[in-house]
Amino acid sequence: MSEMEATAGPKPASPGDAIVARINELANISETRGQLTRVFLTEEHRAAAGLILGWMREAGMRARLDAIGNVCGRYEGERPGLPCLMLGSHYDTVRDAGKWDGPLGLITAISCVADLNRRGKRLPFAVEVSGFADEEGVRFASTLLGSRAVAGTFDERALEGRDRDGNTMREALRQFGLDPDHIRAAARARSELLAYVELHIEQGPVLETEGLPVGVVTAISGATRLAVALTGMAGHAGTVPMALRRDALSGAAECISAIEEFCKTDEGGLVGTVGTINALPGATNVIPGRVSFTIDMRAASDTHRRKAVADVVRQIEAIAKRRALALQIDVSHENRTVPCAPWLKRQVADAVTAEGFRAFELPSGAGHDGMAMIDVADIAMVFVRCRGGVSHHPDEHVDVVDADAGARVLLRLIENFRPRDAAA
Amino acid sequence: MSEMEATAGPKPASPGDAIVARINELANISETRGQLTRVFLTEEHRAAAGLILGWMREAGMRARLDAIGNVCGRYEGERPGLPCLMLGSHYDTVRDAGKWDGPLGLITAISCVADLNRRGKRLPFAVEVSGFADEEGVRFASTLLGSRAVAGTFDERALEGRDRDGNTMREALRQFGLDPDHIRAAARARSELLAYVELHIEQGPVLETEGLPVGVVTAISGATRLAVALTGMAGHAGTVPMALRRDALSGAAECISAIEEFCKTDEGGLVGTVGTINALPGATNVIPGRVSFTIDMRAASDTHRRKAVADVVRQIEAIAKRRALALQIDVSHENRTVPCAPWLKRQVADAVTAEGFRAFELPSGAGHDGMAMIDVADIAMVFVRCRGGVSHHPDEHVDVVDADAGARVLLRLIENFRPRDAAA
Repeated sequence: MSEMEATAGPKPASPGDAIVARINELANISETRGQLTRVFLTEEHRAAAGLILGWMREAGMRARLDAIGNVCGRYEGERPGLPCLMLGSHYDTVRDAGKWDGPLGLITAISCVADLNRRGKRLPFAVEVSGFADEEGVRFASTLLGSRAVAGTFDERALEGRDRDGNTMREALRQFGLDPDHIRAAARARSELLAYVELHIEQGPVLETEGLPVGVVTAISGATRLAVALTGMAGHAGTVPMALRRDALSGAAECISAIEEFCKTDEGGLVGTVGTINALPGATNVIPGRVSFTIDMRAASDTHRRKAVADVVRQIEAIAKRRALALQIDVSHENRTVPCAPWLKRQVADAVTAEGFRAFELPSGAGHDGMAMIDVADIAMVFVRCRGGVSHHPDEHVDVVDADAGARVLLRLIENFRPRDAAA
Repeated sequence: MSEMEATAGPKPASPGDAIVARINELANISETRGQLTRVFLTEEHRAAAGLILGWMREAGMRARLDAIGNVCGRYEGERPGLPCLMLGSHYDTVRDAGKWDGPLGLITAISCVADLNRRGKRLPFAVEVSGFADEEGVRFASTLLGSRAVAGTFDERALEGRDRDGNTMREALRQFGLDPDHIRAAARARSELLAYVELHIEQGPVLETEGLPVGVVTAISGATRLAVALTGMAGHAGTVPMALRRDALSGAAECISAIEEFCKTDEGGLVGTVGTINALPGATNVIPGRVSFTIDMRAASDTHRRKAVADVVRQIEAIAKRRALALQIDVSHENRTVPCAPWLKRQVADAVTAEGFRAFELPSGAGHDGMAMIDVADIAMVFVRCRGGVSHHPDEHVDVVDADAGARVLLRLIENFRPRDAAA
């Protein structure tokens, strides 16, 4: 569908219809035919930015590309230069992506501003919409590049990171027409931002299970990733009696069951996942002598997660000791929990209730731009139900009525928004 | 070391010393420098056969290469043409092998005959020694080729099997100077054989744990191999609550623990091994949607093993059902149990006792040429302790005193041997 077609014709029946039409239009901009892949500093990035800047201007915003390739739209308040409520999400994708992860929040925000603009409504604050150029981190294996630049926490060392063709980010920025030495120009001051609010698909099955179109996010869960290696003694599957074995895979199996049991019985929404496992030497008739596996643990507070990780590590240590297996555990990755600001979360909940839905709270187990934006503003998030909890996959889907519900909640939130001081 | 050096010089102090010297000499014949690899129908096969035929002749045997490349030595009894007690083992190896697996039994048997011959002792039966050309099945991925030819069960279809260079076994036999159309000439009649007895390293840690140099084998355990696949639902490690997961790896872990527990509590020496596991999609932050693993189960009787396999399958089915995982289980391989003949096993036990050791019985979890020879004769086996149970590895080791103990037991067995009818 061309831009002409998307913006011409009769006005769609609901914000949801218009949002879905734009989701589809944006999804046509992909480096791969028949699937969606749109990564940082590519021709597709440029084309998508152009389309979105057009939508922003059409919605009554001043719009520009910033120093790292984010699209930035500004809708002034009752008088020019007021601090803003910033809305946003990202418009890059993973490879073979779904079309909703990122764009839904960005397009919905533009749709809300367009509604204000249609009605000539000005608020006692400005509204800005940020479309972040890289959240997924596909090209340079470094995530949240767009929002980190806005938050002023972009790490210049990332400029030397290389894509799979060997190009550095520095070179890619230049080729895109941006100046790698001026990324700091994208940074915003805390005084300019009243808050950052992001609408995003849930990427999980909780809202579907609850039968709700939208949810109020409590926090972006921190994550700890562990790399575990158990070493026992390889041996012949036929000749070593059970009592004389030091089977590393049987040990790993006990650990995996312990992790599952520990997380299942936790009442605070803790999740723990063993996503990879490797058993060596890896033959049907040989007892595994060495097994490595990973653990990913997330909770809605750092305290909770850290305590859980310590408990799980203690259990693994006990299993290894009892089985006479050598154990190595390393923390391979750690992300702090990013809480949604209570004062702001309350306003999201009020908007949800005002639109006739139950204000259901849930943590975000996936990462979002708010993880970077917290360094420059208080944050909150609205989740929209997605079918089966499927994400990062072409089957990712949001019903139009849910997109509509999300848009109504976000618009209500904007119109009723009171800055922190006023809200307190 | 040349053959001259090996057979010259002062007579070694014990049979054990002489056996170890020949083990080392034979281990020098390898296709790879610095490690031991000797496979079927190669120049190394030919060189090893030549060396062994020389040892056989030196021990007073008529010796020849048979139609498939086995070395066959015959020491006549009190009169020519008597049925024989056949002793033997194989002289091919796995890649990067230990030097004892196979050659110990063959060299010990020759040593025993040499002892009889030195003393001019003739028995009321002939003694034959068979050195099987291929037991490991490394080159053509088909095991027990040598002993199957002797037992008359060689499958002609194996002639079309190819090695990793694309040569068929048929071509390899011709190149070696053998006629692939006359392999049946290697087959022996049941009436020619009174019994088949093999001495072999244990390849497991049981004798070491028992503090015994030798053991009496009860049976060569049959094996059933299963391929199991569990399919659940992949998902984001952060966004899917524990209660909504269908984690295939957690399911597999529960199966592995159940298999271990089931075999550990079995009192009949059952062993069960999960040697390979693969979890997909295989990312730290993704819940595994599909896991495949293998099970290898062995017991000293077919009835016992089949019942155990059925019980384990039932447990896995219950686990899969409770977790809402789709399950596929296939039998990928099945070997019958080959029992050692009670009358013959009793004579092995008597020989062990006569040499001053406790007659300790254990099953063989690994496969041996007896699995083929059972089709043409009753079989028995003597196990010799090997260090740490290590086998199929350069660290494979037998102490000279244990080699000596094995030789004394085998000699005692030969000298006291009474054929089945006489023994009954």
